[in-house]
Amino acid sequence: MRKFPAPIHNVVAALTKFPGVGPKTALRYAFSLLAMRQDERERLARSIIDLQNVQTCSECFAYCEQSICSICNDNQRSNDVLCIVSESRDISTIEAANVYHGKYLVLGGVLNPIEGQTPDILHVKELIKRLGEHPEIKEVILAFSPDIHGETTMMYLARKIKDLGRRATRLARGLPIGADLEYTDEVTLGDALIGRSEM
Amino acid sequence: MRKFPAPIHNVVAALTKFPGVGPKTALRYAFSLLAMRQDERERLARSIIDLQNVQTCSECFAYCEQSICSICNDNQRSNDVLCIVSESRDISTIEAANVYHGKYLVLGGVLNPIEGQTPDILHVKELIKRLGEHPEIKEVILAFSPDIHGETTMMYLARKIKDLGRRATRLARGLPIGADLEYTDEVTLGDALIGRSEM
Repeated sequence: MRKFPAPIHNVVAALTKFPGVGPKTALRYAFSLLAMRQDERERLARSIIDLQNVQTCSECFAYCEQSICSICNDNQRSNDVLCIVSESRDISTIEAANVYHGKYLVLGGVLNPIEGQTPDILHVKELIKRLGEHPEIKEVILAFSPDIHGETTMMYLARKIKDLGRRATRLARGLPIGADLEYTDEVTLGDALIGRSEM
Repeated sequence: MRKFPAPIHNVVAALTKFPGVGPKTALRYAFSLLAMRQDERERLARSIIDLQNVQTCSECFAYCEQSICSICNDNQRSNDVLCIVSESRDISTIEAANVYHGKYLVLGGVLNPIEGQTPDILHVKELIKRLGEHPEIKEVILAFSPDIHGETTMMYLARKIKDLGRRATRLARGLPIGADLEYTDEVTLGDALIGRSEM
């Protein structure tokens, strides 16, 4: 590849830190930045720097602007159920479904000892403390992606939660909307059969 | 979608200006930015602002750091052929093939009157001036993407170039490497047949 001017090179190097962005995509972004006006670039640069103002909620560890987030502060929300998610962004995904009306706790990742993600790095202690302080929590929903690390994390947490005398539940496995039966894997199909519902 | 803290919202809004980046991808990038250290974010922000230092070559209009780019300054390169490209980035694509050793001229886009891309916005005048001042240029290669606007631009420029008594050529149409004959469209296949070469 031809040597680009240093400023283009630098922005490409910085943009490849984004997930799923390789040199080609980064170069495409760089050229779109070059096509912008300088004040637009400055607005983007400022918004990136201003991310330092994002705080995490002291209750649930979700990203928020105050010390306690709007969900933890909401008295309308049910207190007898707690939903554990891996990352802050998972909350918005679940909220979009508009089915869950309890509170959340962000674990801060999944168990993955090889990558250094051990229970003491994650908010496991905080979960146990919260269950200890809030006997009204009867059920803990483990809303993790059903992949290898998500499954490991859910199994690990379920044991801890059951030791404290609470119910540990997980999201149903089944066919996503619009799925093709022919291409559904046998584990999903098996679980969808077991979890079948009356029509 | 749940309301995110304002700084996240702002960075998402700014990142959706990138080509092919919608709110979901922008949110993914925003969370990866939140996971970075502040000094890494500052480096990215600075590199974006520093793009104002990128100049365009006074000869070929490619992005460069000096007033004349390294290709235009290279006496080793052939002067009897000129390659016209739409954007600065196309030069690096062609250079990577390592087949062309002449000089370039960046048109600055393709003809698209509906989007306001008329000949006077593009470097058409500069091309004609260059051909007038450099009688040694015998051939002009029109290296545009073979889509509707690229084809229109090539037809428009070819007439101007031929009026000035020079050859106007275009890139060959044919099967890309690794292509599947079955899935090749009939126009490409027809042109590949016409342009067939001896083995």
